[in-house]
Amino acid sequence: MGTIVKNVSIVTGQAEAPFIRHGYFKFADGVIVSVAEGTPSPEEIDRVEVIDGKGKWVMPGMINTHGHLGMSLLRGHSDDLPLQSWLTEKMWPFEGKMDREAVHHARQLAMAEMIKSGTTTFLEMYHLYMDDLAEAVVEQGPRAVLMRSMIGLCSESEQREKLKEAVTFATTWNGDGNGRITTMMAPHAPYTCPPSFIEMIVDEADRIDLPLHTHMAETQREVEEHRKTYGVHPLVHFEQLGFLKDRHWLLAHCVHLGEEELDILEQHPSVHVSHNPMSNLKLGSGIANVQSMLERGINICLGTDSVASNNHLDLVEEMRIAALLQKGAVLDPTAIPAETAIAMATKNGAKALRLPQVGTIEAGKRADFIMIDPQCLHLQPHEHVMSHLVYALKGADVQDVFVEGAPLMLNKELKTFDEEKLQFEANAHYQRICEKLK
Amino acid sequence: MGTIVKNVSIVTGQAEAPFIRHGYFKFADGVIVSVAEGTPSPEEIDRVEVIDGKGKWVMPGMINTHGHLGMSLLRGHSDDLPLQSWLTEKMWPFEGKMDREAVHHARQLAMAEMIKSGTTTFLEMYHLYMDDLAEAVVEQGPRAVLMRSMIGLCSESEQREKLKEAVTFATTWNGDGNGRITTMMAPHAPYTCPPSFIEMIVDEADRIDLPLHTHMAETQREVEEHRKTYGVHPLVHFEQLGFLKDRHWLLAHCVHLGEEELDILEQHPSVHVSHNPMSNLKLGSGIANVQSMLERGINICLGTDSVASNNHLDLVEEMRIAALLQKGAVLDPTAIPAETAIAMATKNGAKALRLPQVGTIEAGKRADFIMIDPQCLHLQPHEHVMSHLVYALKGADVQDVFVEGAPLMLNKELKTFDEEKLQFEANAHYQRICEKLK
Repeated sequence: MGTIVKNVSIVTGQAEAPFIRHGYFKFADGVIVSVAEGTPSPEEIDRVEVIDGKGKWVMPGMINTHGHLGMSLLRGHSDDLPLQSWLTEKMWPFEGKMDREAVHHARQLAMAEMIKSGTTTFLEMYHLYMDDLAEAVVEQGPRAVLMRSMIGLCSESEQREKLKEAVTFATTWNGDGNGRITTMMAPHAPYTCPPSFIEMIVDEADRIDLPLHTHMAETQREVEEHRKTYGVHPLVHFEQLGFLKDRHWLLAHCVHLGEEELDILEQHPSVHVSHNPMSNLKLGSGIANVQSMLERGINICLGTDSVASNNHLDLVEEMRIAALLQKGAVLDPTAIPAETAIAMATKNGAKALRLPQVGTIEAGKRADFIMIDPQCLHLQPHEHVMSHLVYALKGADVQDVFVEGAPLMLNKELKTFDEEKLQFEANAHYQRICEKLK
Repeated sequence: MGTIVKNVSIVTGQAEAPFIRHGYFKFADGVIVSVAEGTPSPEEIDRVEVIDGKGKWVMPGMINTHGHLGMSLLRGHSDDLPLQSWLTEKMWPFEGKMDREAVHHARQLAMAEMIKSGTTTFLEMYHLYMDDLAEAVVEQGPRAVLMRSMIGLCSESEQREKLKEAVTFATTWNGDGNGRITTMMAPHAPYTCPPSFIEMIVDEADRIDLPLHTHMAETQREVEEHRKTYGVHPLVHFEQLGFLKDRHWLLAHCVHLGEEELDILEQHPSVHVSHNPMSNLKLGSGIANVQSMLERGINICLGTDSVASNNHLDLVEEMRIAALLQKGAVLDPTAIPAETAIAMATKNGAKALRLPQVGTIEAGKRADFIMIDPQCLHLQPHEHVMSHLVYALKGADVQDVFVEGAPLMLNKELKTFDEEKLQFEANAHYQRICEKLK
């Protein structure tokens, strides 16, 4: 029993044998059983489903470690504005009018878009209708790390209400969908959550043993304002307040860190960074010092953020831009080589999300993988697979996507989403909310 | 007679009416006759070929203003190395073994790849087998600006030989292919051409009335070495030697310019800049100060450079990265708004290449245009066309490509290239040259 995928090149992500030029692998019950060079023997393929990859490239499904799927109707709603006007005049008014249906269809669009470009695991940090999303994830097959994000600029009783909601959500859904759903606790950001509220959240995270996610040092302005209010950088503040020690944190952005803050990250191996280069560029936030983080052994993964600031959910391009941007920023073409960029988009993300079961093509891991058809002009000559995955691949070259061994896309056709309907609904609900804004 | 394209959204690029949400346009004999809002009348479509765009987006064909198509077999051949080892140990040895057939197939691959992602005009700066390329361009339909690039690190008699070859090529082919081919004169770079040689080239360019193209200030190192040798920045040197005044120059890269050099560009409106953000990042060259150039009114267009340093020829992504990168580099989300990025990829390129006949969808211009199918997830909601073209579009969304009213691609199928053959040949010749290297 089980399935063998043969005639493929495999980017395994394993430390030894990171790449198999011609090989095959077997999975059964959603788990990878074996990975090998060459061609399976007649005995091996006896009574096994065989998928002939015909020269396709296989890599671990990509892992998007920061996003707000619920905002996906906002693609192109506003760009090229100063951050404050963009937020207060464009984003927040629209979000204020969003209802359950709009959020649902935004997320349907986002999940489908991510699968299409090779993402098998995504993180959703948002405050609206999280149960609906969890149900959709169970139904439609991706792997997801979900959290009810909390903004603490409110009364303590409201804070407690939000926290209760977040804990209920997290404990209800953690491990659901045969383990495809896991959950985290998420104070929105140091500039939207007073320390007392973050402490409450951290305590609850300890109690229910969940990792934490927050925005950190995305803009210069928020760091400066934190310094004005508290006298220190928000990350230093976190450390001083004892929030970091021995806790699993995933910090999104980390654009504005100095030596002191980088030291703190280095000293806390349980703290991970979600690098979102395209969003950081688009909002004029800046360029994170990823090279320094890598040199210090800090675990860095990739996120797209929402389509409002990207404007797509394509980890292939995010991986490329992460690699290119850092080379240009530090004037060093050896910064973030292809293998590192691939690790950031796959196994580093798994580590950052506390998902030891995914991130590589390796016996014992869950069968989350994607297949790429190299038969396109921009991947020729097709000799240098690792290089092409980072520097030439397009999201649209992803042909097949499997999560836990189940196909979510075959030959570029989504199996658990109706693409035409998604497009129709996204436009209908976008127009509907725009009408409400008038 | 002629052709009407109806039911389309049109990004015209015109100063007035830059965007028509629902309109049509007519072209005849390769020239755009009219552009209008709404639907054509029965009289207008009488005895005219009608293309129903069915909601597609039309924009001017994109213009790639810097490249070396002849190097296209080198995609992924080497990455992530220090610049000098990359050049001397990887690029030059391979190029040294390339022969006429290899260069031909490299260029076939490159031209096809560019058409696929919406480029209608490209620039080729290279020293090998330029006549072959000109013949292919005449035959296969794109618009091209061609030049036999010259390196002057040789004896004066060799310099004269190269110059003669460049002049012969330029004068032979300028205006060929019904005007689709134009030519330029191209000293390779200040660091590979002594001033005396550049002077010879400039004089010849004057005599035959052609614009000039060169690499300028791509790396910090070349600028420093020029300062050591000549005491000044290469651009200042050009100005002091009288090379710039009243001459049409297109300068590729311009990554390392200070205030003095920016002033020089501002004072010379006939000098244009080809910004190659992805190549500049990948080689660790740095980030050009495009925002300052735009503020000074300097004309900036986009180029991909070769696949050896990009690693693809996709102006859609180049346009996006140009916009995002500058916002992030100057910490200002209003830097390079979408309209500016589109202008850089279209009409600014036309101006920089002295091609007044293209770059906009406008009566009197040649009918070089592309059509995009917005029916894909990453372009939903599809309301904000200008934004999506820059921040969400993929090269693979381009569906139809016309040059001078002739279709080079319809429904994503190339009309003048055999895609399967291109892929086969690219791999065969890459392997063949690799064998020669052993």
